[in-house]
Amino acid sequence: MKNVAVLGAGRIGRIHATNVAALPGVTLKYVCDPFGDAAAQLAQSLGAEVSTPEAVFADPSIDAVVVGSPTDTHSDLISRAAAARKHIFCEKPIDLSVPRAVACAEAVQAAGIACMIGFQRRFDPTFNEVKTRLDAGVIGVPEMLVVTSRDPGAPPAHYLKASGGIFRDMLIHDFDIFRWILCSDGDEAATLHATGSVLIDPAIADVPDIDCSIVNIRTKKGRLAQINTSRRAAYGYDQRFEVLGSKGMLQAGNHKPSEVTQSDANGVAIDKPENFFLQRYREAYRLELTHFFDVLNNGGTFRSTIADGVAAQKLSDAAAESLATGRVITL
Amino acid sequence: MKNVAVLGAGRIGRIHATNVAALPGVTLKYVCDPFGDAAAQLAQSLGAEVSTPEAVFADPSIDAVVVGSPTDTHSDLISRAAAARKHIFCEKPIDLSVPRAVACAEAVQAAGIACMIGFQRRFDPTFNEVKTRLDAGVIGVPEMLVVTSRDPGAPPAHYLKASGGIFRDMLIHDFDIFRWILCSDGDEAATLHATGSVLIDPAIADVPDIDCSIVNIRTKKGRLAQINTSRRAAYGYDQRFEVLGSKGMLQAGNHKPSEVTQSDANGVAIDKPENFFLQRYREAYRLELTHFFDVLNNGGTFRSTIADGVAAQKLSDAAAESLATGRVITL
Amino acid sequence: MKNVAVLGAGRIGRIHATNVAALPGVTLKYVCDPFGDAAAQLAQSLGAEVSTPEAVFADPSIDAVVVGSPTDTHSDLISRAAAARKHIFCEKPIDLSVPRAVACAEAVQAAGIACMIGFQRRFDPTFNEVKTRLDAGVIGVPEMLVVTSRDPGAPPAHYLKASGGIFRDMLIHDFDIFRWILCSDGDEAATLHATGSVLIDPAIADVPDIDCSIVNIRTKKGRLAQINTSRRAAYGYDQRFEVLGSKGMLQAGNHKPSEVTQSDANGVAIDKPENFFLQRYREAYRLELTHFFDVLNNGGTFRSTIADGVAAQKLSDAAAESLATGRVITL
Amino acid sequence: MKNVAVLGAGRIGRIHATNVAALPGVTLKYVCDPFGDAAAQLAQSLGAEVSTPEAVFADPSIDAVVVGSPTDTHSDLISRAAAARKHIFCEKPIDLSVPRAVACAEAVQAAGIACMIGFQRRFDPTFNEVKTRLDAGVIGVPEMLVVTSRDPGAPPAHYLKASGGIFRDMLIHDFDIFRWILCSDGDEAATLHATGSVLIDPAIADVPDIDCSIVNIRTKKGRLAQINTSRRAAYGYDQRFEVLGSKGMLQAGNHKPSEVTQSDANGVAIDKPENFFLQRYREAYRLELTHFFDVLNNGGTFRSTIADGVAAQKLSDAAAESLATGRVITL
Repeated sequence: MKNVAVLGAGRIGRIHATNVAALPGVTLKYVCDPFGDAAAQLAQSLGAEVSTPEAVFADPSIDAVVVGSPTDTHSDLISRAAAARKHIFCEKPIDLSVPRAVACAEAVQAAGIACMIGFQRRFDPTFNEVKTRLDAGVIGVPEMLVVTSRDPGAPPAHYLKASGGIFRDMLIHDFDIFRWILCSDGDEAATLHATGSVLIDPAIADVPDIDCSIVNIRTKKGRLAQINTSRRAAYGYDQRFEVLGSKGMLQAGNHKPSEVTQSDANGVAIDKPENFFLQRYREAYRLELTHFFDVLNNGGTFRSTIADGVAAQKLSDAAAESLATGRVITL
Repeated sequence: MKNVAVLGAGRIGRIHATNVAALPGVTLKYVCDPFGDAAAQLAQSLGAEVSTPEAVFADPSIDAVVVGSPTDTHSDLISRAAAARKHIFCEKPIDLSVPRAVACAEAVQAAGIACMIGFQRRFDPTFNEVKTRLDAGVIGVPEMLVVTSRDPGAPPAHYLKASGGIFRDMLIHDFDIFRWILCSDGDEAATLHATGSVLIDPAIADVPDIDCSIVNIRTKKGRLAQINTSRRAAYGYDQRFEVLGSKGMLQAGNHKPSEVTQSDANGVAIDKPENFFLQRYREAYRLELTHFFDVLNNGGTFRSTIADGVAAQKLSDAAAESLATGRVITL
Repeated sequence: MKNVAVLGAGRIGRIHATNVAALPGVTLKYVCDPFGDAAAQLAQSLGAEVSTPEAVFADPSIDAVVVGSPTDTHSDLISRAAAARKHIFCEKPIDLSVPRAVACAEAVQAAGIACMIGFQRRFDPTFNEVKTRLDAGVIGVPEMLVVTSRDPGAPPAHYLKASGGIFRDMLIHDFDIFRWILCSDGDEAATLHATGSVLIDPAIADVPDIDCSIVNIRTKKGRLAQINTSRRAAYGYDQRFEVLGSKGMLQAGNHKPSEVTQSDANGVAIDKPENFFLQRYREAYRLELTHFFDVLNNGGTFRSTIADGVAAQKLSDAAAESLATGRVITL
Repeated sequence: MKNVAVLGAGRIGRIHATNVAALPGVTLKYVCDPFGDAAAQLAQSLGAEVSTPEAVFADPSIDAVVVGSPTDTHSDLISRAAAARKHIFCEKPIDLSVPRAVACAEAVQAAGIACMIGFQRRFDPTFNEVKTRLDAGVIGVPEMLVVTSRDPGAPPAHYLKASGGIFRDMLIHDFDIFRWILCSDGDEAATLHATGSVLIDPAIADVPDIDCSIVNIRTKKGRLAQINTSRRAAYGYDQRFEVLGSKGMLQAGNHKPSEVTQSDANGVAIDKPENFFLQRYREAYRLELTHFFDVLNNGGTFRSTIADGVAAQKLSDAAAESLATGRVITL
């Protein structure tokens, strides 16, 4: 039996706490949040207690912490959890600063604790099925990847102030998909070109940020990847990728609320994609925590490590630099 | 808070017990099964106790029972639960005998308790979405229904001995879909023609039973329905229907394990349907019990009543008679 | 080089004449129609001459006639063409009366000429691909067939006066599909049940006729077929069938004008089906005449013979009798 | 009536000659090819005569020429046709050298003749349907374009020697799609990044050329485009694009030989795409010549002008420069 504290009782904290509470062999003991009401409500509904990070790190009965608090608290909490020798599941990103993310990785390694970064898309049933078949060789050697990643609508510009920009906030997931799908044999990005625009909301230019972007990556082995992203897709949350191999192609499509087809005078229509990441990745969020505790209990390696977290952030930084300079970045 | 006993710890009993245990506001108190080991294992894993129907019916703390035991015990358990004034959720069918099913319905009504029959397909997200849009009028007035209902493989012939035959065992669900989709305004079947064959396993002829069938139904308002069923579909569990209305068509398609498309020298392939009813209707089983307790707590009418159960069995009997006599049956 | 006359310059006659004129090795010599203007216009646009059936049958240079005139002229023209020893391509049906159709078949056989009936659906690229794969055994032995056949809209009731009723006018194609797909090994219908309603246009009841129908067929080998038809599908011309075999299923879907998918706030929509039979079967009409002249030139058997025409009409008659009597018909 | 000569009797020349010969109001008078046998065979089968460019340009009865000869003859034939005041339909590209292409455009303008470049994809029913709906505003303002363009298999390396490289040979079509879809309001490419690899056939590196590539384009208005291409797709000729707009997305999918779906133990499979450009664009080749003569006869502007040809070649040159230098190119 593992005793667990969830740090953060906001949107993502609630998802993780609920999933932790439902796992067999795992006890959700504490929920922490500076907003006491949110923590109290969440703790009560799940039969846990409210606590503070200090108390959690000092409690010898706690085996692991799940970090779901705001991004700017992650590196501090990781460092303190490592010092207290608690295993860590941390939401992406580790930190908006690559040097601080690297420092976290070093602290984790020095402490000898386990640390998994929550790239939940690696646990999405569809995305993971692509990965499984790819590794099984059904399309031969992977050569090219095309990732489409579009939010249903842009958040208010002020929300983006603290986001680190589109590449660190949004494309970090897509850079992780790139590495997971195209680089599993030790390959890595060699050059990267990114550009983008403000086409949706002029206020985003004042952040300053962009609201849509395109990225080209070429790997050391010559593989090619393209990522296109937008903060707005009028038809819902659009999350697809396709990988071309020497013997075929695998495409990961959107999930839909139902399998209804409606035919009428306007056309033949299926459902729009699941509306947002909370719906689309609901199962992925559950499965990533199942995996985390399965590795803690039974050994093995995490499907997404803190090293993966650092690597994705380096690509985000490179993209930001390419956008700023108008140049191709060599990694 | 409702206290509940689940009667039956076999395949379907386990599903219901697990769903009951996870519902907020509901306590799974007892699990009963003549096979004590099954009951003990299930009860322990869910924090419940093993009991007997006698003890359950005698326990004043119990509000409701969930009947998931073999078909030939249903009517007895319904009668006794009604006498003990426990609310009832009962797996289909009520009983293989229509008169006994009618007697159950009368007992339930006399006792003034609530009784819901588990036609779980009415809770399938896709099927229910069709129903919702149909009721909203998106395709106008419904005129014609085509139901395709195919199992992945035929069970051993000896299993079918106690099944009541393909119409009472398998098509009862399809007859319920027919009534739910095409008869919601009080319409009912007027004439029915059914025929079938043994094409899959000759041993099924010795049961005696058939392994594939086709049914035509015409309603009092002249609406038309066709049902085709088979005990075998090499590509998995095939559960579809389509309804044609004056302004369009709604089709309910199969659910798939993932949204992966694989393109190679052999073609462009998506996943086969979910393999069997436990996968396809997993969410439906959860939602039907959520609905049951929601109605118990907050009032309203069940989406599938004991009257619906009786009506579907009458259609099953009519189909069996049509097959036996080679005639069109007038209802 | 074959010299050909097309009898009939209406809608279907124009299609056939245009296709004949474009075939290499075939010369469209004459076009005949009681409405001289139609014949003259068609003949001129295709470089042919206007003539009369009398002159055509008397012209020794004519090898074959294509009969595309109104249904009630078919049997007379077939008899006269046979007497004149001209090969015949005749639009379905041979005649609304089965005895007259049988007489035509006998006349053709006695004359020793070739006669093909235009069941153009056998030449549709999609339908024919199903047939080819079925014959290749990709889904094992065929067991069950479901045919959906819906027109975009009902014709005026007065047009239906001379049609012979929905079974002889519309379902004759579906009965032919049934025989082609499910009976290619000599199997034949054993019993048939048909019913239907007037749900679209009350004036159709006064014809008298029905505007939607359902049919169950069981063959001598126990195979099962269902046909559902409607005179109206708000989303276009709906022409599909699926055949279930011991090892899988083949489905023939609708053809679309384009492969565009439009995703917006309303859903994810593809094109409606091709709007009517002239579009959907445009290629089939071309291919059936190519086949006709290929067999005339190079030998072989027609893919749809006059015997197929007679057999489909017998099923149409059986369906009409089942509707009229409310009984299952034994063939 | 227009009299026409087709220059070139190879693969593409035969397609154009056949389409010209079938057009009403157009007479195919001459076919020219240095390989006399090819010209003779083609001319005979279409009722035309063999001739030479000299004779064609000197014949006052000739209104227009269709240039389908090898790429390195295009600019010479265009110049001579312009001098002889014959209207010109020319296969893409105008010339592998942009200055020579510009010179052709100037010669055409000076002569006051009409000249259309054969970007046949603009006439593909699916692609053109996207364009039509886009222009109708169904997805609002276009913001982002993703083009996937993959051949079924790489040609022999020696064939590529004279091709001008993948950007001038293959992507010129995709650059034209980019301009047609994203730049119809006068927008143009502002910056372009291209890279690529040899992943399919090492011999292609010796040409020297690459066999797969990715391109990022940002327009003056900030719109974004990505193109991914490969010389090999194991599943056939893959020709898709999607355009994201402020109100939705339009996707152009592949065309298939049939609408058959096969479900078996391996999955649920539809047809692979049409195998190669001759099948996929068969209708487009027919429609582009119909359009050419329609404009000649009735006035209007060509859907793809010689200016479009020059513009696409400038983008091809920019891509080649980006690949060679590893830099982002400003246009």
